[in-house]
Amino acid sequence: MEKLVLHEDSDSGNCYKVRLVAAHLGLPLERRDYDTLKGETRTPEFLANVNANGRIPVLQIDDRFLPESSAACFYLADGSPLIPEDRFDRADMLRWMFFEQYNHEPNIATLRFWMAFVGEDRLSEAQKALIPAKVAAGNAALAVMDEHLRTRDFFVGGRFTLADVALYAYTHVMEGGGFDRRSYPAVERWLDRVAALPGHVLIDG
Amino acid sequence: MEKLVLHEDSDSGNCYKVRLVAAHLGLPLERRDYDTLKGETRTPEFLANVNANGRIPVLQIDDRFLPESSAACFYLADGSPLIPEDRFDRADMLRWMFFEQYNHEPNIATLRFWMAFVGEDRLSEAQKALIPAKVAAGNAALAVMDEHLRTRDFFVGGRFTLADVALYAYTHVMEGGGFDRRSYPAVERWLDRVAALPGHVLIDG
Repeated sequence: MEKLVLHEDSDSGNCYKVRLVAAHLGLPLERRDYDTLKGETRTPEFLANVNANGRIPVLQIDDRFLPESSAACFYLADGSPLIPEDRFDRADMLRWMFFEQYNHEPNIATLRFWMAFVGEDRLSEAQKALIPAKVAAGNAALAVMDEHLRTRDFFVGGRFTLADVALYAYTHVMEGGGFDRRSYPAVERWLDRVAALPGHVLIDG
Repeated sequence: MEKLVLHEDSDSGNCYKVRLVAAHLGLPLERRDYDTLKGETRTPEFLANVNANGRIPVLQIDDRFLPESSAACFYLADGSPLIPEDRFDRADMLRWMFFEQYNHEPNIATLRFWMAFVGEDRLSEAQKALIPAKVAAGNAALAVMDEHLRTRDFFVGGRFTLADVALYAYTHVMEGGGFDRRSYPAVERWLDRVAALPGHVLIDG
């Protein structure tokens, strides 16, 4: 069997997505940790050998490297029940994964990183100026999710898929970015539902 | 056969991606145009019936609605040669599609929208303050593409896939956002290669 290595920063929700998929599928994953705050994913070695885009996670499959959390999740789950067989549902799963990377992560994950890891005092003026727009856009994304989950147990096809993995990662730690989970009751119930699934692992596990 | 309707703004590169895929596959696509600058994708009717997230494109398949350009492209191309059969290549195609939505579109497409459609004079102070960071991040994305294409004809697996579609849409109009294509010779050659493929259509076609 191929050897799987996750190049990651263990605090990152994007990296957690890949670990969560591997846990659900029972796949062994070797882990190599990098400290992004210390620039460890911008070294010449990392850019030349792991990811020219200077970002984690990167899933290493034997000697090949796959950046982008959602692509790594898709690789691991390809052919498993975590990806729907139905053509519309499969595309709809990707729809929520793209929604997550475009509307959710740049707001909710970035605010968590700034507030809980960098520290508000150390933000640049340019970063501080972006906070109100990111708070508004993050809450708008959570409202779209809450509306969708009001009548559903999971995002797509009535069962747990990669769409739930992708959206769970930063939603379940939204408080780190100053978001209030009690404002989104359907999201709260879904968070509990995902955390109660067999095979679930914690972000700091 | 199912009826396909594209809810779009014809100036948008994201909408063009879906039209380009449909053209390559010979699929008939009915088009409904919205003017995003006039708020036509934020009306109560649009939010209730087409996309609660207030964005285009949305691909309508009979009476079902699929937002997110990359998901719509995947739906149309599922089972076609535009999506690689090889497991790694399929995930690697998605890797470039996620790269496009995270690192490329928010910089290159947003600057094009601001410069070529809104007009620099009409930007808010907050938007103007973001320009230098978006110029730098857009050039960084183009540099990653250029490096990758230096030894390749297409992004994944040696052939034209959805990764090329996704990245072509806003790269080929990068001048609208103030980016200089002559700085990226491998990207330039790839742009010409994509435009010369049978089945190609223009963004204003």
